[in-house]
Formats: sequence, C-alpha cells, structure tokens
Amino acid sequence: MPQNLNKTLRTLCEDIQESDIGKKFTFKGWVMHYRDHGGLIFIDLRDYSGILQIVFDENIDKESFKIAKKLKNEYVVSITGTVRKRPQGTENTGLKTGSIEIISESVDVLNTCEVLPFQIDEENDVNEFTRLKYRYLDLRSKRLKENLIFRSNFTYLIRDFLNNKGFFDIETPFLTKSTPEGSRDFLVPSRLNEGHFFALPQSPQLFKQILMVSGFERYYQIVRCFRDEDLRSDRQPEFTQLDMEMSFVETEDIISITEDLFALIFNKLLNIKLEKPFKVLDYDEAMDKYGSDKPDTRFELLINNLTDTFTNSALNVFKDNIQKGGVIKAICLPNGSNLLSRKDIDELLNIVKDFGAKGLAWTKVGENGLLEGGIAKFISDDEREKTVARLGAKNGDIIFYQSDSKKTAESVLGRLRLHLAKTYGLIPEGRFDILWVVNFPLFEYSEEEKKIVSVHHPFTSPAEKDLNKLENNPLSVKSDSYDLVLNGEEIGGGSIRIHDTKLQGKIFEILSISPEEAKAKFGFLLDALSFGAPPHGGIAFGVDRILMLLKNENSIREVIAFPKTQKAYCPLTDAPSVVKDIQLRELGIKLRETAGKNLKSE
Amino acid sequence: MPQNLNKTLRTLCEDIQESDIGKKFTFKGWVMHYRDHGGLIFIDLRDYSGILQIVFDENIDKESFKIAKKLKNEYVVSITGTVRKRPQGTENTGLKTGSIEIISESVDVLNTCEVLPFQIDEENDVNEFTRLKYRYLDLRSKRLKENLIFRSNFTYLIRDFLNNKGFFDIETPFLTKSTPEGSRDFLVPSRLNEGHFFALPQSPQLFKQILMVSGFERYYQIVRCFRDEDLRSDRQPEFTQLDMEMSFVETEDIISITEDLFALIFNKLLNIKLEKPFKVLDYDEAMDKYGSDKPDTRFELLINNLTDTFTNSALNVFKDNIQKGGVIKAICLPNGSNLLSRKDIDELLNIVKDFGAKGLAWTKVGENGLLEGGIAKFISDDEREKTVARLGAKNGDIIFYQSDSKKTAESVLGRLRLHLAKTYGLIPEGRFDILWVVNFPLFEYSEEEKKIVSVHHPFTSPAEKDLNKLENNPLSVKSDSYDLVLNGEEIGGGSIRIHDTKLQGKIFEILSISPEEAKAKFGFLLDALSFGAPPHGGIAFGVDRILMLLKNENSIREVIAFPKTQKAYCPLTDAPSVVKDIQLRELGIKLRETAGKNLKSE
Repeated sequence: MPQNLNKTLRTLCEDIQESDIGKKFTFKGWVMHYRDHGGLIFIDLRDYSGILQIVFDENIDKESFKIAKKLKNEYVVSITGTVRKRPQGTENTGLKTGSIEIISESVDVLNTCEVLPFQIDEENDVNEFTRLKYRYLDLRSKRLKENLIFRSNFTYLIRDFLNNKGFFDIETPFLTKSTPEGSRDFLVPSRLNEGHFFALPQSPQLFKQILMVSGFERYYQIVRCFRDEDLRSDRQPEFTQLDMEMSFVETEDIISITEDLFALIFNKLLNIKLEKPFKVLDYDEAMDKYGSDKPDTRFELLINNLTDTFTNSALNVFKDNIQKGGVIKAICLPNGSNLLSRKDIDELLNIVKDFGAKGLAWTKVGENGLLEGGIAKFISDDEREKTVARLGAKNGDIIFYQSDSKKTAESVLGRLRLHLAKTYGLIPEGRFDILWVVNFPLFEYSEEEKKIVSVHHPFTSPAEKDLNKLENNPLSVKSDSYDLVLNGEEIGGGSIRIHDTKLQGKIFEILSISPEEAKAKFGFLLDALSFGAPPHGGIAFGVDRILMLLKNENSIREVIAFPKTQKAYCPLTDAPSVVKDIQLRELGIKLRETAGKNLKSE
Repeated sequence: MPQNLNKTLRTLCEDIQESDIGKKFTFKGWVMHYRDHGGLIFIDLRDYSGILQIVFDENIDKESFKIAKKLKNEYVVSITGTVRKRPQGTENTGLKTGSIEIISESVDVLNTCEVLPFQIDEENDVNEFTRLKYRYLDLRSKRLKENLIFRSNFTYLIRDFLNNKGFFDIETPFLTKSTPEGSRDFLVPSRLNEGHFFALPQSPQLFKQILMVSGFERYYQIVRCFRDEDLRSDRQPEFTQLDMEMSFVETEDIISITEDLFALIFNKLLNIKLEKPFKVLDYDEAMDKYGSDKPDTRFELLINNLTDTFTNSALNVFKDNIQKGGVIKAICLPNGSNLLSRKDIDELLNIVKDFGAKGLAWTKVGENGLLEGGIAKFISDDEREKTVARLGAKNGDIIFYQSDSKKTAESVLGRLRLHLAKTYGLIPEGRFDILWVVNFPLFEYSEEEKKIVSVHHPFTSPAEKDLNKLENNPLSVKSDSYDLVLNGEEIGGGSIRIHDTKLQGKIFEILSISPEEAKAKFGFLLDALSFGAPPHGGIAFGVDRILMLLKNENSIREVIAFPKTQKAYCPLTDAPSVVKDIQLRELGIKLRETAGKNLKSE
C-alpha cells in the first residue's frame, strides 16, 4: 500500500476514511469526470492511490468555485478541504472513498492540459498506434496502471522469494559477443575498436553457466534479453526474462523450487491456491494427446489414435498412408453438428491447410453411434464402433480425422483443437492450468539444414538412461530438460547442463560441429568447463508472457510500459531513427546504397 | 544465510557445527589446499557457504584414501563422512568450522580441473588481463565472491526499502532513440527498419519523466546504462544506475528519502551508523574551500582566499592577476617542510601544470611564522602575517599558492589538495564522509561551444528565488539540484524538473535551442509536459561506484562480475569481435574502408 513520502505537505486520496470526517487535508492529483451542476461543481481527484470526490460550492468558498469553473479533465491541482459524508443516496459503492467527499476551501492549478487525443480509460476506441504515441496518457488508464503495478509486485515477490532461498542476483553484460549462430543478434558497433561489434544477449545462458563454474551455485536475474526476429506473433525485440541457475542439483530440485515460486505468486497476487506437485506430461504424451509440446489442458478435445482401426480402410488415402508408416488420428468436437454449418466445415478445410494439412476428413455422429456425412460411407461397421468407442463420441458430435505422418497429423490436430476451442468457447474463463512437459528429445533432424540439431541448445544434458544410445541412435536420446506450460503457453524452460568436456565434445560431434567451430563459437564456456565445473542446471521464464496470462491480456504489449509495435517501432520516441553521418563515421560503418525500407507507417 | 535447496542430497559446509559431531553428511564442492601427510590427506572443501576440512585416513577408509590420492586443487567432489572434533592444537580459529573436520567415508570425483593459470585467492600476482580472461577462476577468490554477494545484498536491500515506501519498479526500454546530443550513444542498427538505428540509453531520464506524466508518482529502477566514452578514468561502457523519480515533491523530500536509504545501507551492510541529516555544502562553498563540486572532506587542507592580502603584492604576477579580476588562493600542507624534499617540490610543478596551472608558488613556514624559500622574499611582513593567520600555518608547514582566474586557481588547488592527501597519507582509512552539494549554477558558459550550456541537463528546474534573473543574468541563476558525494566521489545526483512548458521554452531559448531543434530532440517529452504534467523530481545513483567505495576497492571492475578492460574489451568472451559480412548486409550497413584499429592487446 502506498505510504506518504511527505505527510506534512499532502495526503493521498485513498488514505482518507469516514473516521476523517471533519478534518482538513491537502490533496494533489489529476482532475477526472468534471461535472458542473450550476452552483456546485464536482470532480473526481485521481492520484496514484485512487480517487476522491471533490465538491466546489459557490456558497462555501467563492474563490475555489471561481477557479474550479476553469478546470478541465487532466488538469493537475492541489486542493485543500474538509472531509464530509456524502448526502444519503449519492454514495458510490464502487469507490473505496465512495461514502465521503471533500469540500474544497482552496485550490491551486499546478498544471493545465491540452485537448486530449483520447479520453483516459476509454482507450478501447483508439487504435493502438495512437495509444502508443501518447503512451503517457494511455498509462493513466486504470487497466494499464494496475498491470504495471502488478508487474512491480510480481518481480518484487520473486526477488523476495529467491533472496530468502539463498540465491544471488548477479548482473551479466549487455555488450557481449555475437556468435555465428546469432543471426538474430542485435549488433552494436564498437567505436573504440573499429570494425568490431558487440551483440546484445539473446539470453545470459553462457554467463550463468560461467557463474556456476565460478562457484556461485544459486544465481538469478530478472534481465532484459534481445532478439531481432520478424515479429509475426506477439513478440517484442526486447523482452524480460527471469533467469535462474543452480549447482549440484537435479531436475527434481529445479522443478520443486519452481513450483514453490509459482504457488507463492498465484497465492499472493491472485489469491489462487495451486496444487503441488504440478501435473507432469511426457513430451511424447503431450504430442500424442494434444499435438503440442505446450498443451492447453483447460479443455478436453483430446487427439486419439485410430491407426489400428483403419489398417484395412476402404479409403485408399487412409490405407496407403498407414502402409507408408503414417497414422490416422482424430478429435471429436462435442455438439459439433449443431455448432457448425456445412459452410463452417468447408472453411475449416482452408484453416487446416494453413496448418500444413493435406485435407480434412470428417463425420457427424448420429443416433446410436451411427456416422453421417463426410467420409462416413467409407467406414465399416467395425471401424465405426471402434472409432465411436475410442473417442467417446455422442449423438450430435463431429469427428475430424487426419491421415498423415505422425508429426503432421498431430501438429494439425493440435492446432485445430485450439482453433475449435477458441471459436466455440470451450475454454473456461479465469482458469489456470499449469503443468510440466518433460523428456524432450535431445536432438531432431532439421530438414532445412539437412543435419541433426539440438532441440534446446547444445549444452543440454542427455538423460542418463539414454547415454548408451548417443553413439548409434542419437535421435532416440531424451534430454534432461523441462518446460513449464501455463494455459497452453510455454512460460519457462530449462535443463540440466553438460558439465563434462568429453560428453560436450561428443555432442558437438553428433551436431557436426567441428572442434575448431566449437572453439570459435563457445570457446570460453568449453575452457571454463575444463576447470572444475560442477554439475548444474537452470531454467528461464518469460516474464512478459507470464504477466499477460496472469492479467488475462491478449498481448504482452499491455504489460510493458513502453512496448514497440509489431514492426519493432516506438511511436512515442520515434525509434529507431536516422542518425547523422558523423555518428556512423565515428563507428567505422556506413549505410549500404539500398533504399531504406521504412516500416513506421501504421 | 544460505539455505539448502536439496537437504536430502547435500549439506552445506558452513551449516555444520560442533553439535553435529558424530553425525554423517554428504558435502559437495571444490578441493582447496590439498595436503598429503603420508597416511593422512587433508583438504579444505569449499562450497558457496564456506570451507570445511576433510580428512582421508588410510586406516579408516582405504577406498576414499585411494581416490583422495588423485585429487588436485579445484577438483569437484562429493564427500560423505562423519563430523568429528579436530585434535587439540589443530583448530583453525580463522574458520567458522575451524574446530571440527569430516572424516571421509566415501568420495566421488564429479569433475576434474586442468592445470590452473593462477592459484585461487592469489590473484594479486596476476595481471588483470589474465584475471579477466579466466574470470570464472578469478571469481572463485574470497574477495570477489564477497564483493558480488555484497552487491546482491545491496540491491536487494534497496528494492526492499523502496518497495516498502510505495515505489514501483518499472522497466524502461533499452532499444530507444538516439538524440543529436548523443555523440556518446551506442547505436544499434535496425534490421526491420533498414537505415534506421536504435540507441542504447545513457540513462532512463526521459522515460522516468514520462512515467511521472503518466501518474506513477514513485518510480525506481536498478538499470543498466551505456556510454561510449573514451575510458580514461575508471569507467565501463555499461554501468548500473539506481534511478528514482517522484511527483509532487520538493528537494527536501528527495534528500530525506535518500538519507533514510543510505543510513539503512550503511547500518545493515557495514554496521556503520550515519548521522542524519547529512552535511550540506553550497556549491560555491565547495568550490571555494575544496576546489571541487565533489569535495573529499575526510581531511582538511582547505583552500583559502588571499586575494585581499596580495592586492599590492611586490610580485607583478600576483598584482596583475588581481587587477585582471583573478584571485590568489593557497593551501597549507602541515609538516610539509619535513615531508617534501626540494626535488619533490619541483616535481609538484609538473603535476600542477597537468592540472592546468601556469606555475606553482610556494613558501615554507619557519619559526615564529616567518616564511622561507620560494616566493618568501617577495612577501611583505603585513602580507606574511595575514597569510599565516588565515591559513593557521605552523612551523614546518609548506604553503602552495595559485594566482589565476578563480576557476583555474580553485580547480588546480582542489586537485593538488587531493594529490598531496593521497601522497602523504592524510586520508584516514575506513572513514566514510557523505554529504550533499546543492545550489549548483543552472548554466555555464562553454568556451568550446561559445554558448551557454546546462550544467546538468536542460530539464533541470531553476531555483524559484532566481526565476526573475533568467532574463537578464542567466549565468547567475541557481538550479534546484543536488549531488550526493561520498569520500570525494559523486555517487548520485538529481534535480527538480521543469514541468511547465512555457518555462521549458524559456530555458531552450537561453540555451540557443530553436523550437524546431527542441522538437526534434525532445519532442515527445515536451508534448507530454503539455498534457497535465505534475511537479516532479528525481535522483540517480552510480551503483558500481558506490559498491567500489563501500568495499574499499580501487576500481569498479572489482565489483562487476564480468567487466571490460579500460579499452572496452572483454578478454573472457573476446567481445567486441568481427562479424560475418552477411550479418552486416542484413542490417543494411557495411564497414568503412579504414583499417580497423585493434585495441585488444594488453
């Protein structure tokens, strides 16, 4: 709760209670909801604690009333007056100070305000570019103010918890080295070292591992990270991460401290009791049932495997796909026949094509478990019975099928599942489902690069039980890693790291990274590992995303004080901007002779 | 105090006490001080809590002993054993666990260690480049470990204090706009907006003022800032600032909360009681007596004004200087005649020339206040008596004189004062002198730019009492600003800001900044001020510098986990470094055809 810095000079609006009736105070803040009722003028005075009604009465103080006549919304004023009870019937129960008001005895205008481009607290009508351009007005809205105060409480609570657990807050550099992989690095030309560049960190990963080698054992940082991505989804070029690393720990230790932390956050900030331990899903199970490594478990609509049912399908596309090693998987939308028109079903076809599907087979479920429409006529009685039983399908449901490779079928149905849930309101409001996904594969084969790549990063430790498979079947090796998922969004992830240089060398070999390349990329970490590195592991959380979810916002921009647009532009400050040639000359760089694309338009 | 994350697996070294004698525990950490005494091997086991002696006894556990034979310093081990009392006479009182030891019953080597480039805790023999290259080893030293833990406690204490005072921790952008003044800005080329650049913030000044306009009233942040300076003195291209801003406050409020904060820091972290209120020095007095706006008051050696004494001096250089409006000022070094040889005095001449002096007049003080040597023969009896009286000079002292403009004389004597104090040990160890310097001039005349410039920044409010002088005598106007000085180092500074657009316009006029230029440079802040800006002010503190002073270190590099060299280079990561041309091409820039200077050498 706000405390007064300077009690002698000023009282905060929400510090006043009924017990103060008859006493005189001075308040400072902004004019809201100006109402002129003839001989009486009312305003709501807003300061950072809240709102208080002020009355200017011509019969009580002429001078105040005269000044009040000239007040406008968002003027800044200092008001001295006496607390009184509001007349019966005029109380505002929605306001903490709704039973009292201040009768003004003196008012000073501390500042005026130009005509507002939009009204405070009515920003919903305003386009986002304008809101961001006048962010200082936008931030006066109750919603954004509460979001940022929530954010401040959130990070403080985390620091308090970790400090009490013996963690050290250690700052790592922002001006650091670009790695050849760092194609999404922001670069910073060095003036003192012309022709050389720093990179802004995508994460403090290497430094936190170095800190473990240094013996700090329990590190955390709430730290800005940078990634120069094409901002298709809801991302920002700079984002905030809660970064943790611990020595002499195993997965269970990291999971346990994370659960304690999130239980505390939910309890203190949302008054919600999370049950511990959290649900744990195996990666394979998550992909199998939800078609996603960040499953949204707030609703059912599970994916089922029907491959064994359709081995001898009359549908050649099913049969052939199974023979090639593919799968038939399906989801069943309850009451789908009533929810979706034939046109809706046709439109779904286009949607799943965007998800990478070749097509979308479907059947409606009729009485007595009969299937109708779509591919129903190609389904035998036996197939039908098994399908209906496995999916628990009921009269009025629709079943959607995918016949494809396991990867594609699961990914398409996973995305279709989310699409249907959002479109048909299957996601319960105000519910928080938090769970772990574990046992990720260590590697995957990249079709793009035509080689084995890391699923997380090359310092992730293989699961001990799979060490013997590294040589002959690396793609079957699981990793000692874990992702935390909230309402279908990945909010954190981490792993136990490799602390053994020989094992690290083996991993680089599998990743086709030569010793020379490894030295150039990660030399200092490899060196460090050879000087007595302890077993260690850690986790990092996306602060902006977590806050967005906890505050039930649609975009991380609503929980960031000064976000950039989807085009990485700041309408408030006009950044990025052109700079003087002399600045570039000092840095030893110049612009290429290309017409600079300008993405600043709305 | 450290707490155990995973008590079932491991106990921390310093959690063991005499009451644990006879009990069995598992410890994990690093091998230190390996001593082989034949059938007995001793090591100190080090973890992040501290140190514990382990004994391997061939007669008690052969297997442990066999493994222990192969241990080396900085190997990482897991040891299980029983606590016992050390034999009488072998206790180590310097160690918290010095009365007990562990007799090993089983040991696992978790990792080995290459031959160390230098021994831990003996880094004093090692050059700093090597220390920084192997920073992970350097950070294992007791001193650096304690410095970083102190830093973590320091920032946590600040957050705790400010959080309880109702301050909000609000993050501001790192990718922001370069201002034309920002010649020391680090630039970041934008890939999505080719030809345009972000700048890394030199401070969040504009954003924190915007937050005040937004109504947040109490903001703080512990935030990284960036300045691409020539690193002559002890600076880093990235540094950490405690940044604060408040609304509806006056200088007294900011001074009061700062004093509460620093009293808490000194009390909790150093067990030192600071007296409140802190000493306050007027800027004019600081310049007059100490020749510095950040006076070191831990020792006397005050500067005295002798201008009135020497108006009719026989020395033409004195007389002419006074006639031209200059001053004669002097300091008196107690016992200087015995401390300084004639050669030392001659060498001082070269030193003060570096400070900008034309020369260095001096006299020794003999018996009965007689002056000897140097310019003594040009000083009349009357002048001598007045000089000796004013300086309180005694037999054996030396007086150093400067005849120059007020500014130069004070600056030279201020620096000479510090030089003499350091050279002749006048600064008491372990003493902390903290004080405010206030009433800075708002403007100064820049000989370089041939115009009036701001002493702080153009948003600094003039002192209310001087508003009427703005028009006709701007250089005489004082500002509403304040610097906090600790042991002669500026550790913080701030001001009340201008919240009135008309007054801000007037200031720009005096600074010869046209409305167009002002709009281009600070447009968004000026806009914001016109939409109901509250009166506000703030302060910012240099975290690295404060920690250096509190930990009695000579360089801020000793309190930063991963600092850069004086040439802004990181020997650990080899940053900055050359990048691939394709990375530059994506950013729309290329290198100029100049031979890149390489400053990486030691």
